[in-house]
Amino acid sequence: MKKVGIIGGTGYTGGELARILCVHPDIEIKAMTSRQNAGKKVSDVQTYLKGYLDIEYTENISNAKDLDLVFVATPHGVAMKETPALVASGTKVIDMSGDYRLLDPAQYKKWYGHDHTDTENLKDSVYGLPEFFRPQIKKANVVANPGCYPTATILAVAPLLISKAVSTDIIVDAKSGTSGAGMVPSPRTHHPFCGETIIPYSVGTHRHTPEMEFVLGTVSKSETKILFTPHLLPVIRGILSTCYLTLIKDMTNDEIAKIYEKQYKNEPFVQFTDEPSIRAVVCSNHAQVNAKVFGNKVVAFGAIDNLVKGASGQAVQCANLMLGLKETAGLMTPGMGV
Amino acid sequence: MKKVGIIGGTGYTGGELARILCVHPDIEIKAMTSRQNAGKKVSDVQTYLKGYLDIEYTENISNAKDLDLVFVATPHGVAMKETPALVASGTKVIDMSGDYRLLDPAQYKKWYGHDHTDTENLKDSVYGLPEFFRPQIKKANVVANPGCYPTATILAVAPLLISKAVSTDIIVDAKSGTSGAGMVPSPRTHHPFCGETIIPYSVGTHRHTPEMEFVLGTVSKSETKILFTPHLLPVIRGILSTCYLTLIKDMTNDEIAKIYEKQYKNEPFVQFTDEPSIRAVVCSNHAQVNAKVFGNKVVAFGAIDNLVKGASGQAVQCANLMLGLKETAGLMTPGMGV
Amino acid sequence: MKKVGIIGGTGYTGGELARILCVHPDIEIKAMTSRQNAGKKVSDVQTYLKGYLDIEYTENISNAKDLDLVFVATPHGVAMKETPALVASGTKVIDMSGDYRLLDPAQYKKWYGHDHTDTENLKDSVYGLPEFFRPQIKKANVVANPGCYPTATILAVAPLLISKAVSTDIIVDAKSGTSGAGMVPSPRTHHPFCGETIIPYSVGTHRHTPEMEFVLGTVSKSETKILFTPHLLPVIRGILSTCYLTLIKDMTNDEIAKIYEKQYKNEPFVQFTDEPSIRAVVCSNHAQVNAKVFGNKVVAFGAIDNLVKGASGQAVQCANLMLGLKETAGLMTPGMGV
Amino acid sequence: MKKVGIIGGTGYTGGELARILCVHPDIEIKAMTSRQNAGKKVSDVQTYLKGYLDIEYTENISNAKDLDLVFVATPHGVAMKETPALVASGTKVIDMSGDYRLLDPAQYKKWYGHDHTDTENLKDSVYGLPEFFRPQIKKANVVANPGCYPTATILAVAPLLISKAVSTDIIVDAKSGTSGAGMVPSPRTHHPFCGETIIPYSVGTHRHTPEMEFVLGTVSKSETKILFTPHLLPVIRGILSTCYLTLIKDMTNDEIAKIYEKQYKNEPFVQFTDEPSIRAVVCSNHAQVNAKVFGNKVVAFGAIDNLVKGASGQAVQCANLMLGLKETAGLMTPGMGV
Repeated sequence: MKKVGIIGGTGYTGGELARILCVHPDIEIKAMTSRQNAGKKVSDVQTYLKGYLDIEYTENISNAKDLDLVFVATPHGVAMKETPALVASGTKVIDMSGDYRLLDPAQYKKWYGHDHTDTENLKDSVYGLPEFFRPQIKKANVVANPGCYPTATILAVAPLLISKAVSTDIIVDAKSGTSGAGMVPSPRTHHPFCGETIIPYSVGTHRHTPEMEFVLGTVSKSETKILFTPHLLPVIRGILSTCYLTLIKDMTNDEIAKIYEKQYKNEPFVQFTDEPSIRAVVCSNHAQVNAKVFGNKVVAFGAIDNLVKGASGQAVQCANLMLGLKETAGLMTPGMGV
Repeated sequence: MKKVGIIGGTGYTGGELARILCVHPDIEIKAMTSRQNAGKKVSDVQTYLKGYLDIEYTENISNAKDLDLVFVATPHGVAMKETPALVASGTKVIDMSGDYRLLDPAQYKKWYGHDHTDTENLKDSVYGLPEFFRPQIKKANVVANPGCYPTATILAVAPLLISKAVSTDIIVDAKSGTSGAGMVPSPRTHHPFCGETIIPYSVGTHRHTPEMEFVLGTVSKSETKILFTPHLLPVIRGILSTCYLTLIKDMTNDEIAKIYEKQYKNEPFVQFTDEPSIRAVVCSNHAQVNAKVFGNKVVAFGAIDNLVKGASGQAVQCANLMLGLKETAGLMTPGMGV
Repeated sequence: MKKVGIIGGTGYTGGELARILCVHPDIEIKAMTSRQNAGKKVSDVQTYLKGYLDIEYTENISNAKDLDLVFVATPHGVAMKETPALVASGTKVIDMSGDYRLLDPAQYKKWYGHDHTDTENLKDSVYGLPEFFRPQIKKANVVANPGCYPTATILAVAPLLISKAVSTDIIVDAKSGTSGAGMVPSPRTHHPFCGETIIPYSVGTHRHTPEMEFVLGTVSKSETKILFTPHLLPVIRGILSTCYLTLIKDMTNDEIAKIYEKQYKNEPFVQFTDEPSIRAVVCSNHAQVNAKVFGNKVVAFGAIDNLVKGASGQAVQCANLMLGLKETAGLMTPGMGV
Repeated sequence: MKKVGIIGGTGYTGGELARILCVHPDIEIKAMTSRQNAGKKVSDVQTYLKGYLDIEYTENISNAKDLDLVFVATPHGVAMKETPALVASGTKVIDMSGDYRLLDPAQYKKWYGHDHTDTENLKDSVYGLPEFFRPQIKKANVVANPGCYPTATILAVAPLLISKAVSTDIIVDAKSGTSGAGMVPSPRTHHPFCGETIIPYSVGTHRHTPEMEFVLGTVSKSETKILFTPHLLPVIRGILSTCYLTLIKDMTNDEIAKIYEKQYKNEPFVQFTDEPSIRAVVCSNHAQVNAKVFGNKVVAFGAIDNLVKGASGQAVQCANLMLGLKETAGLMTPGMGV
């Protein structure tokens, strides 16, 4: 039984990690931190865990050296402070925030507004998208768990870019459930404001833009340019990413389908389906993708649960790889359907 | 043209007052206050008012003596500070908060947690439910605009209590849209928390309990006891109040219907309909009510838009009466239906 | 590995059975019927099952004698036609409809509008609520899986009735997600109609009324009378049942809590929690209940996922008992929380 | 007082016409047809109209020659049958369906699947978007009321196309509330299916594609090509159209803003605002639009209420023009805001 800790155990991604790991066959949660809830039983705060997890929140992780791996499920800026000591003590780290996603410290500063203080681990960190970085993740000490929008988008468009069927100029019109904004109340996620509408925000300025460009550039070995328009949906969980690409040679829908089938045929969590659906994947680690030709354009869709494949499920998938476990352990549950 | 001001013009009830009054044929908004937005054009903050209202928010109402009436659309505690000076300058006041609803200062302190500082105006204040206090409202200087839950509930059950058909022990199971919680974000109205569920809260302790008991006791001349369970709905606007009463004599549905028809036949805003519906009244000042017999029990329903008949529409209805205008002026729009 | 079939595999409860059973450690789905989808792969119709279930829909179950148990997940009227042959062939039956819930054929006719055609199995059928009928379920050939509203309500109020703390006259104000209405589109579940409102329906006439009265009467050994008001929520999954009971002796909240703790302390799926929440149990087989005293009344709450503990999860729990498996097998997943 | 009739008075656009016209100062509804509700009072079927409209549904419009104008609020195919007789009797017609939007009968047949049977009136029909066809509408006998998606989209992008700042190849990623699908229940608008997701549909094949291309081509005098991806939102009313265009010369946001201001400065119902919002325009005839530069691309937004500016409000605006009334009569109400 592998032993893990969670820094930031009160938030949505921390709670979702606990929801998945409390019934994981090979991983045990030994520590969860929470400043505001230290000393309380986790299952008294998150009542859905009652009967599944019998530990208390602590202020800090004091037993790091007994842990095989620590998840950092906090806003950005925390992981780069905690990681050096964890790595030094031989503990692997999966960071759910953006701290280790952009390998260039200058890029990090530009998009996150402050210096990166752990460039040592940054340079060796691995982007935790197993479908494209599986071998590297297995050997990594520090994994940068992908953002929710990038996961849905990269899975939807990477096969086309890798196949060189499309130009590298991409429009991404993405729609996310409100849980992606985290658990802290704000004007934008106040129900009377967001409840019967769809709200575009951070157009062209969202931090997931450079992340998508960097990762897609890496996997396709071509500089990629994204125009990214995120929208807030009146839905709790789920992302649909609608992507527009331009063909650089004539292709049929069948040829497109073959590209995806080749890419994903052995992937346990990615399905190329005719009509990708948030409801089909919600509460699961699955992604559904599709792409079809319209004239000289391709419209590609990616659908995930932003808290599972877009965050905590993907982190568990990475943890399985990093800890030498079966990649799908604890994650083989179908989406809700209804 | 009557001149009015709004203290607290940024919140939902203040904004809704502006939405109604900006097209009112006989009332003009001359001042709106907002601490956080003072100096800004109202229609730059509330963009739906663009082209309808061309004034700026101010810190305070400086021209009170030129105003015929002021609405106080703030949380409780403010109106009792502002009212004495307004009344002294000859300006009528409609308070949207709870400051003037409970005429007994001891009750006020018990439920609102602090002393009442304007007992002088409190004793003469009138409860602003025109269907039951029309003559008094016409002559009042200070009107306590009813709470949203009490409006839906009193309209639904008062005819039965007045007719002495039922005992005075009532169960009120009410469901409200999230706009009733106001514009300040909070954990309970955070979309991921309230978006796919219904949340009971403040059972037996909600401040609208004594308000309903006091007003129903007054109109029925019998001490009334309410067990009140409010629930938060994943809906923006609308209240449905489901009320359970016990018959003290046998009655048929037809006899019940006659009681309501007699009570409301001349009321422009209350309809006794077979299936009261939030959608039928939303965005309007109308209420729909119904009551039917089940054995020795009656189930009564009341449906309103909590921001209109449950707040700002009702306040305008009162203002019309207080200013000698036609009671329905500016309010004759049907509900949305869809 | 036990072998089961599902009659009615296209609907919501049939699909949910498949979602749970496709990862069940000891049960295997060998047949699913669907008139409209016969010949198609189940996972092509219900795409969330892709990779989990590799069978095709058939018109009928042809291999019944090889099956240990068949779930009938259809509207009422079907199970009583299919059950005699299944039972005769030695196959156990769990009926998800109302066919075997009311043991008195006259009651069945009154509420369901036609004669019962399998009174032979009806008289021996067992109500599938393990918390109250566990020993009987283990030995049953035919189990009537409880309705969704009755599950939430009985779990919430039975302990009080059994303890004789309350009178037997109960008001049940229940709120259900739309998936409870099944997969066939109708005016009431049309999104523009039900999407931003709460709709009371079938007040006093809902078929779950006699079911609750019969079962609560049985477990408490006292005739019970329910006034039942169901409401349709703009939510997909979840039921909250708010129940009003009258104390017949003074009791404190602590005494009430002890009654529930005694009743449920060994139950794996029922929790007595301070604030029962649909979100805490959704997508799980758990129920959360609570009860508190207000004067001479008790307000009791029950929260479940209507498709899991209110339908297919409960059916699997019963199947586990009937097949000699561990009662919790395949069902130990926490609710979603968010 | 002008006299009008509504063919198809039970559906959403018919009901919405009634909601607007019942308080219109210069137009009176004299007839509403409904096959299923003929003989019933309109306000008994649509209870929100109680007190506002005192007529009964009829099977057919029998008094056409006494009517100044008839709205045809039915699915396509009906208007082209009804219009010839109406026009012959001197009655003006506004068709809410697609029958008169595509002036080329061959295009009509291609997209609507059957021949056009009234090519006589088709050739003289006018597209009812007052912001671009005001003079023609004033003189028209037959107006084709625009589709909901085209209204939101054309208002959002036409100024850019007219100014020749952008190329004519446009991506339109639009999101619509469910009321756009009409009042007939269907699997796609069944709440459990569409309630917590966003559903792309009819990608590249939606009938509004040729309508947008034709109208934008006409106003910009350049052939325009649209890739149109509609999505169904879990929202009742409202459309947000997110449009992607390519600049053909460098432009600043200020220059873009000037183009829109010039185009719309005298328009009573179109506002160029920083953050177009469905909530700001819902239940009103207003549209909010915006456009900003991102590299060589422009992202333009258009937000409307699909039943008002996207259907019945726009039809009333056209009727006002056709009947010589003030264009804004009966339409000057602000959006709901909350």
